[in-house]
Amino acid sequence: MVGAGQLARMTYQASIPLGIRFRVLADTAADSAAQVCPDVRLGDYHNLDDLLAFAAGCDVVTFDHEHVPAEHLAALAAAGVPLAPGGAALRYTQDKLAMRQELTRLGVPCPRFAPVTDLADVERFAAETAGWPVVLKAVSGGYDGRGVWMCDDALAAGEVLAHGITLLAEEYVPFHRELAALVARSPHRQGAAYPVVQTVQRNGVCHEVLAPAPGLSARMAEDAQRLALEIADALGVTGLLAVELFEAGGPGLLVNELAMRPHNSGHWTIEGARTSQFEQHLRAVLDLPLGAPQPVAGQTVMVNVFGGQDPDLYDRYIHVMAADPGVKVHVYGKAVRPGRKIGHVTVTGSGTGEDNVNALRDRALRAASYLATGKEQGE
Amino acid sequence: MVGAGQLARMTYQASIPLGIRFRVLADTAADSAAQVCPDVRLGDYHNLDDLLAFAAGCDVVTFDHEHVPAEHLAALAAAGVPLAPGGAALRYTQDKLAMRQELTRLGVPCPRFAPVTDLADVERFAAETAGWPVVLKAVSGGYDGRGVWMCDDALAAGEVLAHGITLLAEEYVPFHRELAALVARSPHRQGAAYPVVQTVQRNGVCHEVLAPAPGLSARMAEDAQRLALEIADALGVTGLLAVELFEAGGPGLLVNELAMRPHNSGHWTIEGARTSQFEQHLRAVLDLPLGAPQPVAGQTVMVNVFGGQDPDLYDRYIHVMAADPGVKVHVYGKAVRPGRKIGHVTVTGSGTGEDNVNALRDRALRAASYLATGKEQGE
Repeated sequence: MVGAGQLARMTYQASIPLGIRFRVLADTAADSAAQVCPDVRLGDYHNLDDLLAFAAGCDVVTFDHEHVPAEHLAALAAAGVPLAPGGAALRYTQDKLAMRQELTRLGVPCPRFAPVTDLADVERFAAETAGWPVVLKAVSGGYDGRGVWMCDDALAAGEVLAHGITLLAEEYVPFHRELAALVARSPHRQGAAYPVVQTVQRNGVCHEVLAPAPGLSARMAEDAQRLALEIADALGVTGLLAVELFEAGGPGLLVNELAMRPHNSGHWTIEGARTSQFEQHLRAVLDLPLGAPQPVAGQTVMVNVFGGQDPDLYDRYIHVMAADPGVKVHVYGKAVRPGRKIGHVTVTGSGTGEDNVNALRDRALRAASYLATGKEQGE
Repeated sequence: MVGAGQLARMTYQASIPLGIRFRVLADTAADSAAQVCPDVRLGDYHNLDDLLAFAAGCDVVTFDHEHVPAEHLAALAAAGVPLAPGGAALRYTQDKLAMRQELTRLGVPCPRFAPVTDLADVERFAAETAGWPVVLKAVSGGYDGRGVWMCDDALAAGEVLAHGITLLAEEYVPFHRELAALVARSPHRQGAAYPVVQTVQRNGVCHEVLAPAPGLSARMAEDAQRLALEIADALGVTGLLAVELFEAGGPGLLVNELAMRPHNSGHWTIEGARTSQFEQHLRAVLDLPLGAPQPVAGQTVMVNVFGGQDPDLYDRYIHVMAADPGVKVHVYGKAVRPGRKIGHVTVTGSGTGEDNVNALRDRALRAASYLATGKEQGE
């Protein structure tokens, strides 16, 4: 796996019971996955020689992020390195304009969009679609809220244009909530779809995942699963595909973003599904038969833990374990910095009665907040 | 953790999300846990210098087996190495006569027993208790059926005595079935008890675990849990204590064996309980608050996988995944030898209706049998 962040760390965990030999390409030995995996190669994923040296002897190379340059993906493939997913699929996570154009060609509902190079383009786009606000997105390089700007007016848009990066304009969709549909696809074209979840974002960053999405109609859940499987097939994805969706009033489901790797919206599957997303990704990229994606609990809630001011988690970690012995704590071994994603917590329950969604959310939010800051704040 | 077998391997897995730094003392780099853990020290647990070098810098030292010599445990403690469990507790897993004497002193029901040195001792024991068969056990060094002999008559007993090892005689108890009660105890004296399970043995080796034990009365389950917690407290155990029990007609529950480490009867907890036995052992030995031991499924069935004639598992591994996507396969990375424990499989379900215990057993037995031999035999 290229990249040694928490996604690689959790994928490594999943490789152990499966008896899969696992190697990571890490920037430094302190990277989250490099701390726990014995087979670490240090190198720079921007450097083709490092990538080729890393890949030597691997049956398949997969990724914990989308940032390997497209030309290197092509060179690896030309050198006979099996990539999963391949460069043709990964292109749609690296180039948001290409993604929007391809999804539109496939008939997948998306917010209206247009490439923009100057303020006149943005103003024309606003006038021809839903007006202001307009969402400007970096065509490449953005993630976790970076590279996305909500512009209320031309002044704000002008400031974004001044950065001088290649931009895409999208109409602002007044959605009810955000959903995510996670599927896996293997080279044998076997597919598996997880229950559709609700994601709760703050400042463009995922904070909470409710699995399954509370109150989602069976029809809409099936639509989202089918849409994700169809996109995975049409784009030739191998491994996981996470489709981030807006649930909007009029148009129904609209695709927001795609990711082709284990995804924050799927961390709940470690405890909440028969097969975790990390095991599923490994099974898919190695062309093993896929595991059952069915939930094992009525409701699972995952909340991310972000670093606070105090870098020493230990006392808070003990407190959280003592306060709620049923909460599952996951820490990523990352140095604590304010706002940095350093772990997550998960609770599972029936989703009904005393275990209702709000009670489970409250437990998970308390634990995550206490771990981060020493304060038990809810929402 | 001293010892790098599958118990250390699975404990290592559990250490990753908890952010615990983990080191193993392994005989060879090919040992099950040594393959997956970056911090491996090679050494011999019979050698005090190796143990001391291994322990340097560890906050606590724990064990994946009971075979570290008692004098080395004492020397480690004298050198200031924190051991969990300590030598005073481990003595009762290393010396079965001391264990029987201490449990009897505590009023814990056990089969009748006596130390024996010659045939006259064994014959006197048979005459004074339930007659033949008599069970002869090695006072130290036995596990997984090794060091236990069922003797139908004096001739058989004579053959065992001829080995020249220190022996204990125990009456043969005509039990209904075997149970196991798994508990954890922390230095803070916090305790946690898992649901009582049924174990199914073949030739003295655990083959299947049914969790919880089907049809066990709530009273008897509570009795077994209380007994295990009381033994853990009385013996000063830190970490896990597995109490193997006979469920007999007249006398009720009788203690068969004790283990103070993660135990084969607890592998089901990885998928079947809120907190796996491996996480629980880590939490206990590090004096962290214990995790919830509650089951997350109505019924969990675990079946061990033993090596067959064909050392290459790969095709059978794929078949098992394809045949039953809900089965969880755990392989230990050990070279396949006939009869060697090389992995286990787990299935979870409601325990009722189409998911009834027999249906779950059938699925797990099929998967384990196929993985071992390429044949789907049931019982």
